[in-house]
Amino acid sequence: MITSITNQKIKNVTALLTSTRLRREQNAYVIEGVKAFMEAPASQIRQVFLTQDGYEKIRVKRPEIASLVTDGTMQNLKGPICELVSDEVFARMSDTKTPQGVLCVMSMPQWSARTLLEERDDVLVLVLEGIQDPGNLGTMIRSAEAAGVTMVLADLQTADLYGPKVVRSTMGAIFRVPVIYSDNLEKSLRRLKTYGVQLFAAHLQAKQDYWGTNYSRKCAFLIGNEGNGLSDGITALADRLVRIPMDGEVESLNASVAASLLLYEWKRQRF
Amino acid sequence: MITSITNQKIKNVTALLTSTRLRREQNAYVIEGVKAFMEAPASQIRQVFLTQDGYEKIRVKRPEIASLVTDGTMQNLKGPICELVSDEVFARMSDTKTPQGVLCVMSMPQWSARTLLEERDDVLVLVLEGIQDPGNLGTMIRSAEAAGVTMVLADLQTADLYGPKVVRSTMGAIFRVPVIYSDNLEKSLRRLKTYGVQLFAAHLQAKQDYWGTNYSRKCAFLIGNEGNGLSDGITALADRLVRIPMDGEVESLNASVAASLLLYEWKRQRF
Repeated sequence: MITSITNQKIKNVTALLTSTRLRREQNAYVIEGVKAFMEAPASQIRQVFLTQDGYEKIRVKRPEIASLVTDGTMQNLKGPICELVSDEVFARMSDTKTPQGVLCVMSMPQWSARTLLEERDDVLVLVLEGIQDPGNLGTMIRSAEAAGVTMVLADLQTADLYGPKVVRSTMGAIFRVPVIYSDNLEKSLRRLKTYGVQLFAAHLQAKQDYWGTNYSRKCAFLIGNEGNGLSDGITALADRLVRIPMDGEVESLNASVAASLLLYEWKRQRF
Repeated sequence: MITSITNQKIKNVTALLTSTRLRREQNAYVIEGVKAFMEAPASQIRQVFLTQDGYEKIRVKRPEIASLVTDGTMQNLKGPICELVSDEVFARMSDTKTPQGVLCVMSMPQWSARTLLEERDDVLVLVLEGIQDPGNLGTMIRSAEAAGVTMVLADLQTADLYGPKVVRSTMGAIFRVPVIYSDNLEKSLRRLKTYGVQLFAAHLQAKQDYWGTNYSRKCAFLIGNEGNGLSDGITALADRLVRIPMDGEVESLNASVAASLLLYEWKRQRF
């Protein structure tokens, strides 16, 4: 059992929770809690850290992983590495207020945009530019899965999908929705167009209502930063600007609400 | 100029920021920042606290209020009370990380459900049961204004609209959207029905898609708690249950997204 917070593995977990750079270097991130653990695909689990209490919780639910933990020193050779951790150490490594005693280091799934775009006709892409709020990002990933997106494409100014707050707010969608970060969003959008994808930008200055637009072809919806919207460069690449009509004196909707309205209008038009 | 945090007015602001009970007793709440101040209806402003810096910021923008502040001791008789406050005191009373030096104590607007329901035919009510997350609540109020609701009706288990986080996330909609708290939501819904309002509950077990439902009559949408959804008692009062179709393995959408989808489908059907 690990009882020291200076243990290298524990220090690495703490660092993964706080550093985007480190997560990208190691292609790894952290999930917490029984529910997240139950949804996590076994192939993406790299390490499991459990308190004795956490071990009891998962024992019945995922026996194939619980069986790897014996007296707290055990490590298996093929599957993920499982470690028992003292309550004190776990409390220090946890990012939550009421730790459940279950934490995993996960491998980031690697997606190929090309494969994703070629494997289905009814392409729907959610494009994010500079989304700052982790809760908004998580909510969008969740809506994106529910609407049936092909993939989410985000620039590097968008919050890190693999930060603990975003991971939590995706409610498991992080394991299933392909999210690809682009270091050159304009270039990526031009490439998207070569696949026949039409780009629709949610824009306050648009004349056309989003519900009066036909989304029957391959579609991408472009959503910009919470405060500033889409940049001019990205807006210029859009095939069409669409607006969400607003009553009252509302200046804009929450970004995740705006994204969800567009995604669900796409979905509605298919029923 | 107030330079002591033990000043009674300052202590009251701090207490209003943290205590729902006190806010209800005083029918008062706190807003912060230049933008919120600019949007605040003058008739609802009770007190204004400004740092020297904050005073300079609003001076040009709202001269009618800035003129009330002279040497820092000034109080006018008719309008709101304005007070200059030292930077140190302001930092202590502020709920934000980067205080802008402008803070107001506001009167809670008092709404009459009856008047609201009688003054327009095209009634749209958003009903909230046990919404916990302040950000979700704020986002819903913002979407509600944009969709054109008549009023929002919430039970007392729903987060307090006048807490600082909710106030911020409404982005000014708090000044304009009638929100009424009910200590007996079932009774309030029965009364709503006597006005000819149809109740639609967003429910995971519903068979009918929300976009295949006709919302041409007076409408109310019922949204339940983030984790547990609507209670059985409230669900039983609904005229119809509607579902939001979801792909993948998503169990539910974010509550503010679900509310916004329903509100905007109502709006779409009117265009």
